[in-house]
Amino acid sequence: MDYSRITSPALLIDSRKAKRNIRNMAVKAEKAGVDFRPHFKTHQSAEIGNWFRESGVNKITVSSVMMAEYFQHHGWDNITIAFPVNHREINRINALAEKCDLNLLIDSADTGAFISENLKCRAGVFIEAHSGYFRSGVYAKDYDTVDEIISSVEGNDNIRFMGFLTHNGQTYKASGEKQIRDLHSHSLKLMNDLRERYSRYFENIIISIGDTPSCSINIKFEGVNEIRPGNFVFYDLMQEQLGSCQTDDIAIALAAPVVTVNRKRNEVVIYGGAVHLSKEYIVNDKGEATFGMAVQLLDNRWEPFPGGRVILISLSQAHGVLKFPDEIPDNIRPGSLIGILPVHSCLTTHLMKSFISLENQNISCFRGNYTASY
Amino acid sequence: MDYSRITSPALLIDSRKAKRNIRNMAVKAEKAGVDFRPHFKTHQSAEIGNWFRESGVNKITVSSVMMAEYFQHHGWDNITIAFPVNHREINRINALAEKCDLNLLIDSADTGAFISENLKCRAGVFIEAHSGYFRSGVYAKDYDTVDEIISSVEGNDNIRFMGFLTHNGQTYKASGEKQIRDLHSHSLKLMNDLRERYSRYFENIIISIGDTPSCSINIKFEGVNEIRPGNFVFYDLMQEQLGSCQTDDIAIALAAPVVTVNRKRNEVVIYGGAVHLSKEYIVNDKGEATFGMAVQLLDNRWEPFPGGRVILISLSQAHGVLKFPDEIPDNIRPGSLIGILPVHSCLTTHLMKSFISLENQNISCFRGNYTASY
Repeated sequence: MDYSRITSPALLIDSRKAKRNIRNMAVKAEKAGVDFRPHFKTHQSAEIGNWFRESGVNKITVSSVMMAEYFQHHGWDNITIAFPVNHREINRINALAEKCDLNLLIDSADTGAFISENLKCRAGVFIEAHSGYFRSGVYAKDYDTVDEIISSVEGNDNIRFMGFLTHNGQTYKASGEKQIRDLHSHSLKLMNDLRERYSRYFENIIISIGDTPSCSINIKFEGVNEIRPGNFVFYDLMQEQLGSCQTDDIAIALAAPVVTVNRKRNEVVIYGGAVHLSKEYIVNDKGEATFGMAVQLLDNRWEPFPGGRVILISLSQAHGVLKFPDEIPDNIRPGSLIGILPVHSCLTTHLMKSFISLENQNISCFRGNYTASY
Repeated sequence: MDYSRITSPALLIDSRKAKRNIRNMAVKAEKAGVDFRPHFKTHQSAEIGNWFRESGVNKITVSSVMMAEYFQHHGWDNITIAFPVNHREINRINALAEKCDLNLLIDSADTGAFISENLKCRAGVFIEAHSGYFRSGVYAKDYDTVDEIISSVEGNDNIRFMGFLTHNGQTYKASGEKQIRDLHSHSLKLMNDLRERYSRYFENIIISIGDTPSCSINIKFEGVNEIRPGNFVFYDLMQEQLGSCQTDDIAIALAAPVVTVNRKRNEVVIYGGAVHLSKEYIVNDKGEATFGMAVQLLDNRWEPFPGGRVILISLSQAHGVLKFPDEIPDNIRPGSLIGILPVHSCLTTHLMKSFISLENQNISCFRGNYTASY
């Protein structure tokens, strides 16, 4: 890796790690007998998408219509938009549904009635359900609402009812593996109850689950037909803290120039801030807010600094402050380059929009999630 | 304003408010007899830059070399990069210094020696000093280090010593106006001590200060030559909480489609998440984490919902959850559009990369802060 060409913050990717993470999840899905429909919002890159094809992936999940358009353009023909149908994008949804096998999400009879009236092409429809994570979705025990939603789309030949989809986001706040397992079991129970209740009306109901913590830890998916994890392709410090991965599994690092070295305070200021990493943080076991973890950038890999974790203790728009547990190594000076493992790889990737591999290759991403031209 | 054309999250700008904020700050600077060198990292837009020209602004501040290149390309010829010199960008710095009046920041003798050796064109140099905000910069009472830094650049004809620059970032964590005033006074005292101490060696030392809270509240700038606030052009909820502005001064709002309405919980899920607003939050006086505040989008303006603040209580990658204090108005349904005042306008703008004015005009921004092509 030729680091001399990196002059400003750049997102490095260790493709061996990312490919290993993909293979491991694909093998896990295969062993469990579940379909693997990875979420592509984490990497947002056509080129990295191709690495999934090498593991046999042929259907994907995205989080927006724009991202669906991008991946459809890059050859993916079976796409679930895992976000409740946005009425205002119905024209683009219809255009997409003409071009690929598209699955949509609904969580209200209002939206059911809307697509029943406005969908011009065949599309699959999942009902989004949840087991206590109040974001979008209908509560999985709220059968009255589920009945209403189903009624709202019944009798429309363009709509194929696929089943129930959940994102168990509670696992991201879990205190550890035990709690993730408990939350996962609870969620599975409710989803299987849904299947049982509605199987008299529909054949082949699909139960689709999605969170990286459950998919990384659990190896049993009783009654699950499809998994949609996304973050696992890169992992990050949040997942490491949850127990979903090891530090060594984290596949991206921000290469950040050192601008100031404060040896009295054992602090290093980097050119690398909220516009590169995002303001997402975790609180470590010492109660410290942690915005990233520093690694040494070596020839074709990175590794932690010896002598204890070097963490990013604060972050403003363009500056980051690293705290060394002990003396700062002599070779860290203004102009040095330090790697930063991110707290939330999805947000860091979204901000950086492209990668440099440790083999000196540029890898570009989808760039369209901002204010669309009007 | 034709909202029907907005189909996905879009950043609205009320240009009357932004222009009023600019004029007010320009008048304040003029009355105080200080130079006004606004920080352009907040809006990052050539077009909005032109609004500042209308208020007589002819010199600016930016936070990166790339942003300096963008504004130089758009006709700005007097630019301070308010970030310590990044050694790795010296070639681009030299190219810029050839094209405009460029001021650089240094905070160590290492970097002083580096630019002394590598600067190929004339440039101004500020020493960054701080009064207790430990990020970059040398502590303003650490005269030994200041002496070393000055020595490191002495005798180089390309380097013009401009003075001392500070960003009193402590004010962003202040508990209110009184504390902002105290922090500002303390910082001013230390900066004036620096000027006094070094005025025997240098003529016309400039004292440059920068934070929006101090510049918004204080009207006296004893001994200050230049102010560099940036955020005030749009303001945001963080500034409102600090007392720097009123809600009505906030000049941008994310237009976000409603996707789910949960009337039992008085919650509304919007298409608008961390990739649109950033994860920055404030804690309100009830102790609630607040990621944004909802407003009603009216014909050519927006205004708060009646009946108490509607706040964004959680944010994931693409979803936001709004909590209404009481019943959700009947006209809020899936497909509606809601405005969200951001917590941190700089980060929201950075994510959205462009604006739509309430007069239906697109306004574009600098887009270059991600991994540069390599």
